[in-house]
Amino acid sequence: MGVVIPFDNNDSAGVASIDPLLKLVEKDMSRVNDAILLRAKSHVDLIPELAHHLINSGGKRLRPMLTLACAQMCGYEGDAHIKLATSVEFMHTATLLHDDVVDESDLRRGKKTARLIWGNQASVLVGDYLLGQAFKMMVETGSLESLGILSQASSVIAEGEVLQLAAANNTDTTEEAYMQVIDAKTAALFAAAAEVGGVVAARSTQDKEALASYGRNLGIAFQLVDDALDYSGKQASLGKAVGDDFREGKITLPVVLSYRRGNHEEQDFWKRTLEKLDQKDGDLENAVALMEKHSALSDTQERARHYGILARDALDIFPESKQKSALLEVIEFCVARVF
Amino acid sequence: MGVVIPFDNNDSAGVASIDPLLKLVEKDMSRVNDAILLRAKSHVDLIPELAHHLINSGGKRLRPMLTLACAQMCGYEGDAHIKLATSVEFMHTATLLHDDVVDESDLRRGKKTARLIWGNQASVLVGDYLLGQAFKMMVETGSLESLGILSQASSVIAEGEVLQLAAANNTDTTEEAYMQVIDAKTAALFAAAAEVGGVVAARSTQDKEALASYGRNLGIAFQLVDDALDYSGKQASLGKAVGDDFREGKITLPVVLSYRRGNHEEQDFWKRTLEKLDQKDGDLENAVALMEKHSALSDTQERARHYGILARDALDIFPESKQKSALLEVIEFCVARVF
Repeated sequence: MGVVIPFDNNDSAGVASIDPLLKLVEKDMSRVNDAILLRAKSHVDLIPELAHHLINSGGKRLRPMLTLACAQMCGYEGDAHIKLATSVEFMHTATLLHDDVVDESDLRRGKKTARLIWGNQASVLVGDYLLGQAFKMMVETGSLESLGILSQASSVIAEGEVLQLAAANNTDTTEEAYMQVIDAKTAALFAAAAEVGGVVAARSTQDKEALASYGRNLGIAFQLVDDALDYSGKQASLGKAVGDDFREGKITLPVVLSYRRGNHEEQDFWKRTLEKLDQKDGDLENAVALMEKHSALSDTQERARHYGILARDALDIFPESKQKSALLEVIEFCVARVF
Repeated sequence: MGVVIPFDNNDSAGVASIDPLLKLVEKDMSRVNDAILLRAKSHVDLIPELAHHLINSGGKRLRPMLTLACAQMCGYEGDAHIKLATSVEFMHTATLLHDDVVDESDLRRGKKTARLIWGNQASVLVGDYLLGQAFKMMVETGSLESLGILSQASSVIAEGEVLQLAAANNTDTTEEAYMQVIDAKTAALFAAAAEVGGVVAARSTQDKEALASYGRNLGIAFQLVDDALDYSGKQASLGKAVGDDFREGKITLPVVLSYRRGNHEEQDFWKRTLEKLDQKDGDLENAVALMEKHSALSDTQERARHYGILARDALDIFPESKQKSALLEVIEFCVARVF
C-alpha cells in the first residue's frame, strides 16, 4: 500500500481537494441544507428523528453539490436547482436506508445504522417517505425533463441493487458484472445529478449529455475507489471501518481481481470467507495481503483513473470557468483519495 | 355474525357488485394489464419474476379501475389515464411489497408472500423499482398535476405506515389514531387514484375535489370493512386467512372498540394476545366472541357505512351516467362485503 497514482501528474497528488467546489456552492448548499431539514419534517415524529440521524451522519453531499455546480457552470440563475439538489440528496438517503436493510449493515460512516436503532421496518418506510418527498420537490420545479431523468435513475438504482443482491457472495462474479452493478447503483445518480443542472439551465442536448457523461464516469471512479478504500488503512481516517465489505462478503473489484488472479488455495480462501462467510482472526489481513500480491488495489485505482479521464474529457466542451475547474478537481479528489 | 347492514336498502344487500365497473373499464383495464407486464420488465430477471408473483396474485385492481372510471365519467378520450392507472397499481404493489417486509407477513391473499420466497431484500428493492417505474410513467403523461397528487400520496402513504408501526401492538390506540392511519395508508391512494381521473380530463377544481373526496371516503370504508373481514368467516371465501391481523397483533378498529368496551379481564386478554403476542389455541375464537359481545364488527361496518354515504354524496355534482352508477355501486359492494 502507500502507492499514490496521481490523476494528472505527480505534483497534483495529495493536493486535489473538494474545497473549491464546496466554496463555490456554499451559499446554495446552505439553502439545500435548509430544504433538507424542512422536507424531512412530518407530524409523525419518528420520520424526522430517523431521517436526521442519517442526514447528520457526515456524508459529503457530493451528489447535490454536483447539481448545484453544474447549474452554476451553465449560467443558471433561478431557484429550481436548490429543489433538484435536495431531491437528489433525498433519493440518495432513501437508497442508503434501504441498502442498510438489504445488507443488514450495523455501521455506516462509523455510526450505528438507522435500522439498528429504529429497526428495519422504520428504515424501509422512512426511505419511502423521503422518496415521495423527493418527487414532490421535483414536481414543484415544474421540470418534467428533470423528473424523467431522476425517475429513470430511481428505477436503474433499484435494478442495480437487485443485480448486486443476485451476485452477492458469489466469487464467480466477473468484472463486467461488477461494472454493471456500480454503473446502475452509483453512477446513475451521479449522472442524473449532474445532468439536471444543465436541464434547469435549458442547455442543449449536447451539453446535457456531456454533464451526464461527466457524472456517470465520476460516479464509477468514485465507487471503484470506495471499494478499494474498504481494504485500505486510509479508510480509518475517513471515519469508516476497514473491512466492512469483507465482513459482509461483498464482491467488489479488488476481490474479483484477486480471485481471478489467485491460485486454487487462494480461491478457496475467498470462497470460505466471502461465500460461506466463515471468517476468523487474521482473515482480513490475509485478504489485504492477497490484494497486494496481485496488485488488486492499485489496479482498481487504475480503473478509477481511466474513468476519471473520461469524466474530464466530457467537460471539454465547456469553456473555462471557476465551476469547471472545481468540477475537474473533484475528479482528482475522488481518484486520489485511496492509499 | 351474519348481520347484513345494507348500504341503501334491504333489496340492494348482496346484489351490489363490482361487475358494472369491471365491464365499463374492461377495454382500458386490458391495456393497463399489458402496461403492467411491460413496465415490470427488466434485464434483471428477479424483478419481473418477483413482480409477477404479486401482480398475478388475484388482487381486484380496484385502484386503477377508479382512475379509469373517473376519467371516463369526466369524458376523457385520450390515453394518459392508462399510464396513470398503471402507475397507481405499481404504487400499490410497491406498498404491498414493503408492507409484507414491515409486517413480516408470510401470506397474502392465501399465497406465500414474495419476501418468504425471495427474501426481504429483494422485496424492498423490487418495490423501489416499481415505484421508480410508476413515476416514469407519470412523467410520460406530461401531467405535472397528476405527478403532484401521486407523489404527495406516496409520501402520505409512507407516513401512515410509520404511524401504524408506532402504534403497533399498542392496545391503548384510540379510534382517532386508527382513523389517522387508515386515512393515510389506504384512503390517500384511493383519493389520488380517483382525482387524477379528473385531472387528465382537465375538469374544474370542484370536480377534482369531489373525485378525491369520493376516493378518500371509499378508501376509508374499504379499509374498515377489510379490518372487520379479518375476523369474519366470510374472509375464507375471499381467499384470505381469517385472523391474520390477530396473529400479527395489529390494532384495527374491531380491536380498538372491543378493548375500550371491555372489562379488565378482557383487556388483559387483548394485552396478552396482541401486545405480548402470547397466543394459544382458542384465542382467535375468543377474540371474535368478544367482538360479537361488544358489537365491534357490526359497529365497524356502521362506520364504513357512514363513509360510504360521504363517498356517495361526493359524486352528487356529477350528472347521471353509467360510470357514475358503477362508481356508486362499488361503494355498496365495498361496504356490503362483510359478514
